[in-house]
Amino acid sequence: MFFASDNSGPVHPRIMAALGDANSGFQMAYGADTLMGEVRQSLRDLFEAPGAAVYLVATGTAANALALATLANPWETVFCSPVAHIHEDECNAPEFYTGGAKLTLVGQADRMTPDALQAAIAAEETRGVHGPQRGPVSITQVTERGTVHSLDELRALTAVAREFSLPVHMDGARFANALVALGCSPAEMTWKAGIDAVSFGGTKNGCMGVEAVIFFDPDKSREFELRRKRAAQLFSKHRYLSAQMAGYLQDGLWLDMAGRANANCARLVAGLRAGGAEILHSPDANMVFAALPRHVHRRLQAAGAAYHLWGGQLEGEDENEPVAARFVCDWSIPEAAIDRFLGLVRG
Amino acid sequence: MFFASDNSGPVHPRIMAALGDANSGFQMAYGADTLMGEVRQSLRDLFEAPGAAVYLVATGTAANALALATLANPWETVFCSPVAHIHEDECNAPEFYTGGAKLTLVGQADRMTPDALQAAIAAEETRGVHGPQRGPVSITQVTERGTVHSLDELRALTAVAREFSLPVHMDGARFANALVALGCSPAEMTWKAGIDAVSFGGTKNGCMGVEAVIFFDPDKSREFELRRKRAAQLFSKHRYLSAQMAGYLQDGLWLDMAGRANANCARLVAGLRAGGAEILHSPDANMVFAALPRHVHRRLQAAGAAYHLWGGQLEGEDENEPVAARFVCDWSIPEAAIDRFLGLVRG
Amino acid sequence: MFFASDNSGPVHPRIMAALGDANSGFQMAYGADTLMGEVRQSLRDLFEAPGAAVYLVATGTAANALALATLANPWETVFCSPVAHIHEDECNAPEFYTGGAKLTLVGQADRMTPDALQAAIAAEETRGVHGPQRGPVSITQVTERGTVHSLDELRALTAVAREFSLPVHMDGARFANALVALGCSPAEMTWKAGIDAVSFGGTKNGCMGVEAVIFFDPDKSREFELRRKRAAQLFSKHRYLSAQMAGYLQDGLWLDMAGRANANCARLVAGLRAGGAEILHSPDANMVFAALPRHVHRRLQAAGAAYHLWGGQLEGEDENEPVAARFVCDWSIPEAAIDRFLGLVRG
Amino acid sequence: MFFASDNSGPVHPRIMAALGDANSGFQMAYGADTLMGEVRQSLRDLFEAPGAAVYLVATGTAANALALATLANPWETVFCSPVAHIHEDECNAPEFYTGGAKLTLVGQADRMTPDALQAAIAAEETRGVHGPQRGPVSITQVTERGTVHSLDELRALTAVAREFSLPVHMDGARFANALVALGCSPAEMTWKAGIDAVSFGGTKNGCMGVEAVIFFDPDKSREFELRRKRAAQLFSKHRYLSAQMAGYLQDGLWLDMAGRANANCARLVAGLRAGGAEILHSPDANMVFAALPRHVHRRLQAAGAAYHLWGGQLEGEDENEPVAARFVCDWSIPEAAIDRFLGLVRG
Repeated sequence: MFFASDNSGPVHPRIMAALGDANSGFQMAYGADTLMGEVRQSLRDLFEAPGAAVYLVATGTAANALALATLANPWETVFCSPVAHIHEDECNAPEFYTGGAKLTLVGQADRMTPDALQAAIAAEETRGVHGPQRGPVSITQVTERGTVHSLDELRALTAVAREFSLPVHMDGARFANALVALGCSPAEMTWKAGIDAVSFGGTKNGCMGVEAVIFFDPDKSREFELRRKRAAQLFSKHRYLSAQMAGYLQDGLWLDMAGRANANCARLVAGLRAGGAEILHSPDANMVFAALPRHVHRRLQAAGAAYHLWGGQLEGEDENEPVAARFVCDWSIPEAAIDRFLGLVRG
Repeated sequence: MFFASDNSGPVHPRIMAALGDANSGFQMAYGADTLMGEVRQSLRDLFEAPGAAVYLVATGTAANALALATLANPWETVFCSPVAHIHEDECNAPEFYTGGAKLTLVGQADRMTPDALQAAIAAEETRGVHGPQRGPVSITQVTERGTVHSLDELRALTAVAREFSLPVHMDGARFANALVALGCSPAEMTWKAGIDAVSFGGTKNGCMGVEAVIFFDPDKSREFELRRKRAAQLFSKHRYLSAQMAGYLQDGLWLDMAGRANANCARLVAGLRAGGAEILHSPDANMVFAALPRHVHRRLQAAGAAYHLWGGQLEGEDENEPVAARFVCDWSIPEAAIDRFLGLVRG
Repeated sequence: MFFASDNSGPVHPRIMAALGDANSGFQMAYGADTLMGEVRQSLRDLFEAPGAAVYLVATGTAANALALATLANPWETVFCSPVAHIHEDECNAPEFYTGGAKLTLVGQADRMTPDALQAAIAAEETRGVHGPQRGPVSITQVTERGTVHSLDELRALTAVAREFSLPVHMDGARFANALVALGCSPAEMTWKAGIDAVSFGGTKNGCMGVEAVIFFDPDKSREFELRRKRAAQLFSKHRYLSAQMAGYLQDGLWLDMAGRANANCARLVAGLRAGGAEILHSPDANMVFAALPRHVHRRLQAAGAAYHLWGGQLEGEDENEPVAARFVCDWSIPEAAIDRFLGLVRG
Repeated sequence: MFFASDNSGPVHPRIMAALGDANSGFQMAYGADTLMGEVRQSLRDLFEAPGAAVYLVATGTAANALALATLANPWETVFCSPVAHIHEDECNAPEFYTGGAKLTLVGQADRMTPDALQAAIAAEETRGVHGPQRGPVSITQVTERGTVHSLDELRALTAVAREFSLPVHMDGARFANALVALGCSPAEMTWKAGIDAVSFGGTKNGCMGVEAVIFFDPDKSREFELRRKRAAQLFSKHRYLSAQMAGYLQDGLWLDMAGRANANCARLVAGLRAGGAEILHSPDANMVFAALPRHVHRRLQAAGAAYHLWGGQLEGEDENEPVAARFVCDWSIPEAAIDRFLGLVRG
């Protein structure tokens, strides 16, 4: 009953097998391995983007921070939601990697609205050189509250950015989960919707530690390579990043895992609803926030269920107040564990 | 016949097995995995340093840059040799991570002498606030030219640093190879010799991508954790870093591999000498630089041998001039490959 | 009729005279001039802080950014109001100088409330190393909307900071105007109210370009000197910074000028009110925001009055909507100019 | 008898007068003052560069660091002499402003040779992304040892830079002194000789604190403005920078002062030679290094002469060894003081 995070489950056996397959003989280091050539081609094919620049790094924060540093000047501000991972969960890595750019928080929830984005961008650069300058827009898909932007919503946001000639980054730490939820193609969810660069996550979806950064306009690619090296994010034994990504993409494994994770979450949501828990945001992918009665929470804890309370502690609060909790499903959670958990919810 | 680098060979099967063993069920992320507790204890035991702070990162450059950023202020200068990896091969990562500290190059070769270090340190801070301030000393062991500092040499360098109250960092990307060469204990080669922090390499010695950073005085540890996170070097699925390091340390595997790599190199050196090649630096561990006649080099290339020329190109030079080349041995090179190579050297 | 900014008026003749007096013979450079010793002592006396560390720089942004960089680590966040000068008007200088620290915006207006500050600080560091860490609190006095915190208000904010062991910085670009408004002593408005470091402005109050940075706990002083030099903010001909500050403090000139500026503003406010303009914030010192009918605004523009519209443009808006404007008074504005302006307001 | 530095003398009365003239009424802040328009035009005329971008800052370190940050990426290295002010005397300001670029020291003395520069540049970028990338070349004119590059020498250095498509910066803290020494035009010593950007110093030559940064290709100008603001180097009361520079350029005052300083130095050199002192470098402009017998040094000290010993202390050394000292002349040193000093040298 482990719903704490999708970075806590095991690596998929087929990805472990891909690592094993890659583990023989010598290979050129630092991204010159033959597997990387195949991975680059696979991702270009997958995204229908023959000229895209494709790089691998090992953490999602590295993918985001390097992508933003490539898109933003140090005197600019990045527009994102107030709960964006880049703002709340990266300990100022974007500020560090960009050399001191600012983050401007747009709106109140896990997704910017076009109007709020328009207003926020328009409000910058009204002071000449004195204020921060307008920089890239960053959209998280799946959002940090488990919701998924529709293609129309993405297009509406990127249209605002384009109006100001600003580039758009997508934090796709849960890219596969969003794609499965929307049932569209990778191209439709990215460049066809106005995205310029994407952090294409693997780690949260069954890999060991690999993320691709893809620029649909490859002009920035040489700079990215230098930024990656300078940031100590270029792996000497790069073939093991390549192998993970190759195994991930092979025969649609990435979509299978995301589909399973989303289905696990749907099962969980249905059961929580049936058990009377209030669902707090729209659980569009593999993550759900719910309000649990305190006695249910205690029962779950006593039984060893793992998940994070969200936005508060238990102590000293009203016993009649429910507690908000976040539940994340990965591909590996057995249905039986979900059902056991739901049984505990029902009491 | 692959002598290009010790980061090009495969991961040792026992480390792959350790990754497989770690790959079941759920684990807390970001270094809170149970294996990390064991690894921390193992390294403390190994270094006879019960209070040491121990962290894992995935690249050698990250280990060095984070260690130096923890030890140096941005207005200081780091003292190192002119061929130090931190100077020549990290694309300004130390400058980036420290927030703009300088590197002062001491001496002319791959190792600083105490006299040159003394003079270089003394020459700083003669201008009050105008010049860079004195910062940490960084020693590479095994050096970038394949030589190993004796314990006396280490102690002489750290004594100079201590005279100026400066901390000392060891870049131990090839720590195991140096230790085997010296036949001493990890404690003797580090804190007993005056080292304050060490990058304890695993990647070049049979791991997939893991380095420990160890501070013998743990007072800096909280800051290091924040620096690591901010630098996007904290792995969510940290258990796979822990597992590599656990497998590496288990039953002395790390020393076995380093011993094998050093023996491979000794076999290569003996054969090169017998074949008439000039040995350019003292090949104390698993790396040798040699001058090869051009026709020998061409014969080796034609046969598919892989190694780096050092400091020059072939074209347009005197046919009678030999070429300098670097040969690195890892644990996995078969003796037969070495012997075949040496046969080609002999002609 | 120049109300655009208090950085647009002339330097007071007595400060020009002080510069002239300092302009003979040779002086040690870089802050070792004899005048600086006198200035340091004057400021210590003025603030009743015999051990305070005192430095001079030439711009307010330098004073703020250097003070914050001294108080904040790069992985921390600075708490300030959403209209703070450090956030809106310094083009990311605080982010640059701190090496990438974040700014957390507290509340909705020009001053943080203790409750909002308490909530904002408490919300940080709930994610271990993942989020930004708590850093200094920065309070602007006079605020960017022309209001002045009472001593009780200052104490209430610093009490929150102290609860979390966080240092407090005061952006005192208009320190003198605030002090005159409150009628208290410099010590009462700073360290006795819980302020740890203050940017003590001179430029906006009749100097040419000089600000003092004062740390009441001098332990940080050596680092500040290195930060100032590294930031290219240490003047070689420092005596001319010292001379300005000496002239500024001499015989209470600084308070005279602030008193005159505040009185000018009070005259302006009274007239605006009498003329039917709506006053938008509490004009406690030398700056007032008011809503003007459009036809009045046009009349003023036609007559050559200079001031900034605030938060909007004229074009394409409702003719019946008033426009918001900011009026800043310095010491040098003649009463006749104010009265002429007010005549135009009345029509 | 003050020869310690040319930043220790007074401001020329005509520059003080220019400040006074500028000190009436209101002026737009932040560089929008009318005087700045005149100064921009004057400098464009002076340099025969109608399209040049021209900015003012207040310190030489700011001029250099901002110019280099505009020309260099953070992953690059700047080529300069080992005694360059940017390396030895700016406390890592170039590293700070560039976001962590490196400085590569070329040659052994105060001027790079074309061969050494060629070799140093060629040696970079032989390691792909691993090493620092090639960045701008920075030449100091007058050098830190008081010598002046001839036009041929400048052209030979910039030709090497151009061969690698690298931009060239000139640190002209003593630009006027060099120009007078060479007897050429500003254009000849800069863009006609291959210089892309120059720090055109005023502070050391009779100003209070002002330097112009001039880019002959203005494409970088918007970025420079943002960098200057972000670095807290944009003056609100900018008119007083403009006024200094206007007074400096008016009627050739800048050349008069430099001519007088150089003549003062020539008088000093002649007297030192006549007095038997050994001249250590070629004193081409307003600065001379000489070896003095110890008893002469003691006699001068006793009489109150001010100058810096260079590269060493007196204590504990051989009484028969002379001491090396640096003597700098500014425009204001009276001939009588020089003669009195020389009388003391003669004994």
